[in-house]
Amino acid sequence: MEKHFNVFVVLYDNFTALDAIGPVEVLGRVSNSVRFVSLKGGTIENRQGVRILTETFDRIEKGSILLIPGGTGSRTVIKDGDFIRELGKAIEDSEYTLCVCTGSALAAETGLMDGKKATSNKSAWGWVTDNHPNVLWNKMARWVADGKFYTSAGVSAGIDMALGFVNDRLGPEAAEEICRMLEYHWNSNPDHDSFGME
Amino acid sequence: MEKHFNVFVVLYDNFTALDAIGPVEVLGRVSNSVRFVSLKGGTIENRQGVRILTETFDRIEKGSILLIPGGTGSRTVIKDGDFIRELGKAIEDSEYTLCVCTGSALAAETGLMDGKKATSNKSAWGWVTDNHPNVLWNKMARWVADGKFYTSAGVSAGIDMALGFVNDRLGPEAAEEICRMLEYHWNSNPDHDSFGME
Repeated sequence: MEKHFNVFVVLYDNFTALDAIGPVEVLGRVSNSVRFVSLKGGTIENRQGVRILTETFDRIEKGSILLIPGGTGSRTVIKDGDFIRELGKAIEDSEYTLCVCTGSALAAETGLMDGKKATSNKSAWGWVTDNHPNVLWNKMARWVADGKFYTSAGVSAGIDMALGFVNDRLGPEAAEEICRMLEYHWNSNPDHDSFGME
Repeated sequence: MEKHFNVFVVLYDNFTALDAIGPVEVLGRVSNSVRFVSLKGGTIENRQGVRILTETFDRIEKGSILLIPGGTGSRTVIKDGDFIRELGKAIEDSEYTLCVCTGSALAAETGLMDGKKATSNKSAWGWVTDNHPNVLWNKMARWVADGKFYTSAGVSAGIDMALGFVNDRLGPEAAEEICRMLEYHWNSNPDHDSFGME
């Protein structure tokens, strides 16, 4: 497939691996490059034994697609002023910022999502939304697009959002071709997700 | 959730990341440990910029769950006699071996799947099945369980298979709880997959 994007994936210890790799598998099919970054670079680990090598935040290129996964580690890095300040710069420099699960809490913490429509995962819904009351949270959505921000519900919803992003930028044929490559049954309605009713 | 398994994920350069990380995200919720291994250990890379640190094959413990992802790199390692011989030993030592996508071609190359029912992905169907005519291939399946082997269709089907494995070992409540954690809409029928009709 034709290549369109440069993607930078923001990692931190105890990120949820599928939050990152699901969208990477989609976006990677239509991107020139996918690179993994963290505040200090080096090896980033999670509790499931995934150890990924990263570059430092300062390698992020302007005008790129930024992908921010969630995970239990988001509760730690959200208190790290350096992390949130550098993340804010990266979001401002990005063309689009895609957040999966509690990744939206990290983006919201920068203040740049104030007044934007967004969603997040259900198991941490109160923590994400109570702490960021100026974001227009939508619990029923599978994913939400508003301005440069795309935000998805929990974990696997990131795959659906990434396909929605491809659909919006490159058209439905591109999204459907990726579905065939991944043999993925796309939940293609962004507005209604049965997990939102629980 | 209660922990039951020790999982070893077999990596090689140019594996498909979602083939590995999808099932890892499922199995990791009910496993004591997930470890990534490769023939020579060290960093394993793929074309989408994923670089994962691995241990060597000889660290695989008997009685574990072995996970074999697919990917374009399978066409290279299938010709590597050392890789296939060591993989065969690991399969024999495993309690269960789960293959995603062209991972089934690697397991089939060891000869240990002869006479077993299995499936694989559709875009490489001819290559996988023509070279391993003694396996009982089923193109319509989302996933197949036969003896110690579980095999799935392409890429994202590995998530459905891993949930099927949890369902078979630990019951439907465990599978459904993981679906809620991942906010994943499970394709829970193993026998019929619309991608198989293409």
